Amino acid sequence: MIVQSKSFFVSSEEKIYPAGEGISRRLVAYDENIMMVECSFEKGAIGALHTHPHVQTSYIASGKFEVQVENEKKILSKGDGFYVAPDVSHGCLCIEKGAIVDVFNPARRDFL
Amino acid sequence: MIVQSKSFFVSSEEKIYPAGEGISRRLVAYDENIMMVECSFEKGAIGALHTHPHVQTSYIASGKFEVQVENEKKILSKGDGFYVAPDVSHGCLCIEKGAIVDVFNPARRDFL
Repeated sequence: MIVQSKSFFVSSEEKIYPAGEGISRRLVAYDENIMMVECSFEKGAIGALHTHPHVQTSYIASGKFEVQVENEKKILSKGDGFYVAPDVSHGCLCIEKGAIVDVFNPARRDFL
Repeated sequence: MIVQSKSFFVSSEEKIYPAGEGISRRLVAYDENIMMVECSFEKGAIGALHTHPHVQTSYIASGKFEVQVENEKKILSKGDGFYVAPDVSHGCLCIEKGAIVDVFNPARRDFL
């Protein structure tokens, strides 16, 4: 059972988790069915192609990324986004330092 | 049945919907179970207190907001976030022009 998150998240008060070379992760809000995560990337950092059974919706909060979903690649910047169906391969290359807000359904228990 | 969204969303190519005085809305990515929406606010715009049966996780993409969840208020800025359980009252006042990324579970069929 995942405990339902608190109501308010102030970024300066939240724990930052390492998530690979040049990548860090901060939980924002979650319960059993949904989990919002802010992922920060240094320029050149690579989110390697991977799959998971969770649906993922993502929003580019800052920076610029080459995002791959299945066999398609696209350059995305602040305000853009992408959708990943369950078990579909996806990854990214950070072109300009920034952050992506990933939201999963159901929650990523492996992130707790 | 909600059609599953496409993979990539480029903000300049997406339709902007009016969503109240000084507020506009842009769909980002969605399927039956999850829906990501970017809500842009002019300074002074008010997201009136309301409830819905959907869980909501929200991320402040830019600007500054006074956010109310149930009986608690908090000033939130870029990188902060909040969580709203089903049927819990919430709303916001925009203090500095900006955008909030709201993600709902399940999808908001009323936004399609």
